[in-house]
Amino acid sequence: MSPIRVGLVGIGEIARVQHIPTLAADGDFRLTAMASRSKPAVPDGVALFATQGEMIASGLVDAVAICTPPQVRYGFARDALLAGMHVLMEKPPAQTVAEVDDLARLAGTVGRTLFATWHSMHSAAVVPARRILAERGAVAMRILWREDVHKFHPGVDWFWQPGGMGVFDPGVNALSIVVGCLPEPIFVREARFRVMPGAHTPITAALELATPTHGSGYSALFDWDHKGEETWSIDWTLSDGGLLSLGGGGRSLALDGRTVVDAPDREYPGLYRRFAELVRDGASDAETRPLQLAADAFSLARIERVPG
Amino acid sequence: MSPIRVGLVGIGEIARVQHIPTLAADGDFRLTAMASRSKPAVPDGVALFATQGEMIASGLVDAVAICTPPQVRYGFARDALLAGMHVLMEKPPAQTVAEVDDLARLAGTVGRTLFATWHSMHSAAVVPARRILAERGAVAMRILWREDVHKFHPGVDWFWQPGGMGVFDPGVNALSIVVGCLPEPIFVREARFRVMPGAHTPITAALELATPTHGSGYSALFDWDHKGEETWSIDWTLSDGGLLSLGGGGRSLALDGRTVVDAPDREYPGLYRRFAELVRDGASDAETRPLQLAADAFSLARIERVPG
Repeated sequence: MSPIRVGLVGIGEIARVQHIPTLAADGDFRLTAMASRSKPAVPDGVALFATQGEMIASGLVDAVAICTPPQVRYGFARDALLAGMHVLMEKPPAQTVAEVDDLARLAGTVGRTLFATWHSMHSAAVVPARRILAERGAVAMRILWREDVHKFHPGVDWFWQPGGMGVFDPGVNALSIVVGCLPEPIFVREARFRVMPGAHTPITAALELATPTHGSGYSALFDWDHKGEETWSIDWTLSDGGLLSLGGGGRSLALDGRTVVDAPDREYPGLYRRFAELVRDGASDAETRPLQLAADAFSLARIERVPG
Repeated sequence: MSPIRVGLVGIGEIARVQHIPTLAADGDFRLTAMASRSKPAVPDGVALFATQGEMIASGLVDAVAICTPPQVRYGFARDALLAGMHVLMEKPPAQTVAEVDDLARLAGTVGRTLFATWHSMHSAAVVPARRILAERGAVAMRILWREDVHKFHPGVDWFWQPGGMGVFDPGVNALSIVVGCLPEPIFVREARFRVMPGAHTPITAALELATPTHGSGYSALFDWDHKGEETWSIDWTLSDGGLLSLGGGGRSLALDGRTVVDAPDREYPGLYRRFAELVRDGASDAETRPLQLAADAFSLARIERVPG
């Protein structure tokens, strides 16, 4: 099979750091074009277009990978599917769950692949954690996801606009891991948000979560205002009293203090493996549960505004 | 077939004004029991229990109709399904979409009917409006839903707590009509909320909506702070320039100024007809789109706080 020719749309940090090098190393894909309103550096042999429409019209691409801010992803994805492209979307796939559901319907109608990606679901710890949780059950879960937004995203401000999700931008990574690991569905029961002056989205969020069989003991703290070392951890207390600890955002996993996984980040290679399989199988994967949980949290939030 | 014996859970205004008289007039059902922590007036021949659990254990009911505030509906519905009951839920069916999805899975597993009701979907205007919109298309839509919360719900305060939805409590009625009428899916693109001192949920909400083929021209205003006459209207500008106007929350419909529907309120009789069909067919109806749109609006909201 000849490589799937990919065009990137929206050339920011995630495109540069993850998509471009991953595509360069994956024989099932070839990065042939990019669309950006700015004038980004372009790898040798890659064509640059001002718009997605011109890029698709060039005939150089079979698929687009949409790396714009989430507020405009729906329109790009819809246009691309209608033009016959397979579509891969960065997380979160759109502003709202209703938009993703419509894209999934459209992908089925036009017979193209839609892949709403959640990169943390491809972290090394997810599959072994899922197996252990299915075998031993969990009576409690504590998500702790904290980092300094100014260190990781200096000068970026779309996070604070409606639809930008604030601290749920990293927080949905944790929620996607949980969706990928837990043998039961999970719900938001309570949410407390802290919102900075001028922002529309929270910088910290504390969630009380539940499953059908555990009404309490499951919680999450997302903190984007954290000045020390980053923490991206999930700790489960297992039904038999054991402790399962995921760290490094999914790069490590320990069971009762013994290392189960300690691996370099291979999320994006795994993500593009999955995209290749979906295209080959004529299938789509439009997972919305992490975005659903975020929207549910907003709908239940008690909001504390930090005085301006 | 002998009547389905129904137990009501949560005896507030909606149970008294709608469920009790509707059940009394419907030969397919018999109201046999009620569960309430208060001591409500009870119709002749109806048993009163302090809890749903005692009511179910009495063996007097085949189905429960859950009319509590939405924050606690999930737990009641889950317990009832696990105890072998069919379950009808007032709108909105739960705090979050994730909870409703889980109840739908559970209903399938236990082989009982779950009916997440949206009473306005049974209003007289919905079916004819759906037919006209499918035939003639709509280029614009304006929802105007305004009333005085203090007139209709004096002294009720769970609306203002997280999960109580504020003005979306009536607003989801409009959204449910739109979901039932429109030939296309609909999304929230922007939302502006006004929140009163001490409240966690909005008293007014202005929404910019869109469909896959109409990026603008669709909007909604929900206003619970309105002192004049109530308005529960939806106006569509049809593709051929015609005007379709729904009024009275779905009791009337006019096309180009001519009356199509002008009928008394028969929403709850229609709703219980549907419940009888679902139970007879061994099916469920767990519609979540109106709640999804509300959650999506919360996740996109620009919030203006009224100073305290």
